[in-house]
Amino acid sequence: MSLTNASPEQAASAARLASRKLAVLENSDRNDALTAIHDALLGAKATVLEANARDLEVANKAVTSGQLSQSLVKRLDLGKKGKYEDMLQGILDVRGLDDPLGKVDYRTLLDDGLVLERKSSPIGVLLIIFEARPEVIANIASLAIKSGNAAILKGGKESIESFKAIATIVSEALTKSKVPNDAIQLVQTRDAIAPLLKLDQYIDLVIPRGGNELVRSVKDGTTIPVMGHADGLCSTYLRADCETEMAVNILLDAKLSYPAACNSVETLLVDQDALESKFVPVAEALVAKGVELRCDELSKKALSKLSSEQLSKVKDATDEDYNTEYLDSILAVKTIPTQSSAETSLVLAVAHINAHSSGHTDAILTTNSGIAEQFLASVDSAGVFWNTSTRMADGQRFGFGTEVGISTNKIHARGPVGLEGLTIYRWLIRGSGQISTAYGSSGKQWKHERLPAGSDEWVAQDAEELKLLREHRSNKGLSNGH
Amino acid sequence: MSLTNASPEQAASAARLASRKLAVLENSDRNDALTAIHDALLGAKATVLEANARDLEVANKAVTSGQLSQSLVKRLDLGKKGKYEDMLQGILDVRGLDDPLGKVDYRTLLDDGLVLERKSSPIGVLLIIFEARPEVIANIASLAIKSGNAAILKGGKESIESFKAIATIVSEALTKSKVPNDAIQLVQTRDAIAPLLKLDQYIDLVIPRGGNELVRSVKDGTTIPVMGHADGLCSTYLRADCETEMAVNILLDAKLSYPAACNSVETLLVDQDALESKFVPVAEALVAKGVELRCDELSKKALSKLSSEQLSKVKDATDEDYNTEYLDSILAVKTIPTQSSAETSLVLAVAHINAHSSGHTDAILTTNSGIAEQFLASVDSAGVFWNTSTRMADGQRFGFGTEVGISTNKIHARGPVGLEGLTIYRWLIRGSGQISTAYGSSGKQWKHERLPAGSDEWVAQDAEELKLLREHRSNKGLSNGH
Repeated sequence: MSLTNASPEQAASAARLASRKLAVLENSDRNDALTAIHDALLGAKATVLEANARDLEVANKAVTSGQLSQSLVKRLDLGKKGKYEDMLQGILDVRGLDDPLGKVDYRTLLDDGLVLERKSSPIGVLLIIFEARPEVIANIASLAIKSGNAAILKGGKESIESFKAIATIVSEALTKSKVPNDAIQLVQTRDAIAPLLKLDQYIDLVIPRGGNELVRSVKDGTTIPVMGHADGLCSTYLRADCETEMAVNILLDAKLSYPAACNSVETLLVDQDALESKFVPVAEALVAKGVELRCDELSKKALSKLSSEQLSKVKDATDEDYNTEYLDSILAVKTIPTQSSAETSLVLAVAHINAHSSGHTDAILTTNSGIAEQFLASVDSAGVFWNTSTRMADGQRFGFGTEVGISTNKIHARGPVGLEGLTIYRWLIRGSGQISTAYGSSGKQWKHERLPAGSDEWVAQDAEELKLLREHRSNKGLSNGH
Repeated sequence: MSLTNASPEQAASAARLASRKLAVLENSDRNDALTAIHDALLGAKATVLEANARDLEVANKAVTSGQLSQSLVKRLDLGKKGKYEDMLQGILDVRGLDDPLGKVDYRTLLDDGLVLERKSSPIGVLLIIFEARPEVIANIASLAIKSGNAAILKGGKESIESFKAIATIVSEALTKSKVPNDAIQLVQTRDAIAPLLKLDQYIDLVIPRGGNELVRSVKDGTTIPVMGHADGLCSTYLRADCETEMAVNILLDAKLSYPAACNSVETLLVDQDALESKFVPVAEALVAKGVELRCDELSKKALSKLSSEQLSKVKDATDEDYNTEYLDSILAVKTIPTQSSAETSLVLAVAHINAHSSGHTDAILTTNSGIAEQFLASVDSAGVFWNTSTRMADGQRFGFGTEVGISTNKIHARGPVGLEGLTIYRWLIRGSGQISTAYGSSGKQWKHERLPAGSDEWVAQDAEELKLLREHRSNKGLSNGH
């Protein structure tokens, strides 16, 4: 890793060259580099936290003078209980994951002696632009190295001291590994973002980690593909047949466990026939914890028996509320009017979500499995959940070790993005002289026979197992599956 | 399908709404629509070819006056032997493929009663901008419908008559199916492209099907992800140990079977020690078929014994030649100087390819399997082939039925893009009240146990098979594979 004052072009072209070397390293070499980073950051905790304290001091002054938000300071604080340890654990978790490279997930016999396979490979060079969270450096560096990608990191000025401290430590740690020094570039040049975004000949993917404004400005300023999300407008749909205590617990978790997070719930949809029985207890629990509710007419009316103190937290919703990501202790509430059938209510709720949500994560609370499955099938968001909190949308919770971010893109990677989202594939053909014009209407026929996939070593074993499976299936009168 | 004069915004918002209906249709309904399109186009061949003849007449005049290239006219001609039948067969091939939707390729037990799965889904709304090839309408409509995506098609003025004829027939055919009429929109409004490219709230992916200039202008004009390739600069690396006859056949196929195609070879890399034995016969065969060779000094020198007539086709290469996609009967030739070892030559050839190729398809001709595997591992292109023609890079040849195009993107889909490249996934969780704050350092531990994937019906069967597999493996002392 190098903490560089190089020009954006120098940094990017060096990263490109290094990416080719990194791409062909063994998994054990990439893992050794992660061990080195982990051990170095473990040993230097005090140094990093001192640097972080300097960033926090500046940030807190900016909060006092109204230039920065309190939630940014929270994200900046590496000293918060368990945060540094989580960062270290994340590196080990990533190290422990299967090698994402060299996996063959598709193999076809095109013709005798002509085999096509699809093999996972690194994307190449990533550009990660982040704002306040300094632990992102360790997360991203781990994921990038494990997935064989070079990365250029550009941090915000709020975390500059933490950034420099972590970068110096990681850089030193990497010199003892086989990962090329230029594979992870930490750019501290001022005004580097705009020129970096023009370098599509070197950079393959941009991942902005920050607020809506950052993401939009990145998207507008580049022809490089951008992965991430501008908004996290998540909703939860509450039905009369759900369990009250479960609904209360889930919505408290979804709204309050981290209101500034992208996966917090922002809109609550309530069936009209659930207003009295389910919404009132949910609202009481939320209000008791200080949540402000922005209600439509019907849902507000359902709360008329609340105390005047409670009612001070209940406001009228405008149309804008259903398009707003509050990132705060506020929840918009909308009633789905009673319909002739349960399915029709569902259709309305789904239509609201598909029109208003940001395609991040949406949930349904119900005991009716038929309705739940319809919801799971119809909502077009990266995450669609049944009877759990939208806050579950997270790479660590999904078992990815850590994540580079959550994507609301409609291509490549959606939802929490871990190692797999940082890989792509190449199509390999091993032939024996075949030419294209030999095939077709007047020539030879393609065989197009799907072969077992898996790693190369795995194939011989697969072949035997496939035979066994087929025998087993035919003994049981089962079909062949695929 | 509607052939529309609607505004770009109307067309795109109607496509968006229709996409949600199309996304939840059964595979059988989507297949029925393909049958209807096939039958209608089969019955109306004469009508379509008459319209196509009118386009050809205009185009041929434009060629005479130098406004259009001959290769464009070739692409426009639907009457060319077998082309119409290939188009019809492509629809049936796509129909016959497995349903790409609803496939669960990843499933994790997060905790008891909390199951995560990743399920394939349509992307949403595609915008396809194409130039001359009118058969693209049938290909794209089939792939879009089968993959559950709405599509907006905008054709070039050269194919306007063919476009209108095909669109009218397909539109009528679709009225008898369950596919919503607005799911396939054929926009004939003039100057619609620039406004369509701004509609990122409705359109999820743009696929330009045309020349370099079209692709670049699309990329520069939109924040919507673009899938495709601007250039197809493919190379082939010729080594002394390859079989001469095979090399000649493969290079004739790669250069001449369709010089205007993106997967034709444009650069030949030759090891110095292969110049006499392999390059000379290859060059003679190519020159005899009218190919012009643009050679570096060493390779030109190797051809000094050719006749003066043959030598009239041998020119000097400039640096620019190694960055040029000729789309014509021209081939750039570069010598890889003799190195101390076979591996070092390979490294130089790979470095040339990674620096100059467009990441489309590159091939090696050798009998040395160790060298071939190193090449397959190191070249960073969508397709990397051994002992076969770069022309194999094609969706139909890969067994995809047909393709929406070939992608040199580094994310989402690379190489020939069929149905799978038109899908994405959603993460579904089925829970029973779990909340995020219950887990972590002080709470419950995640289970993160990988479960068998496959369709829902497949799971029960999988469970039994997995048990059997594990028994089988443990009996044999084998590891568990993944």
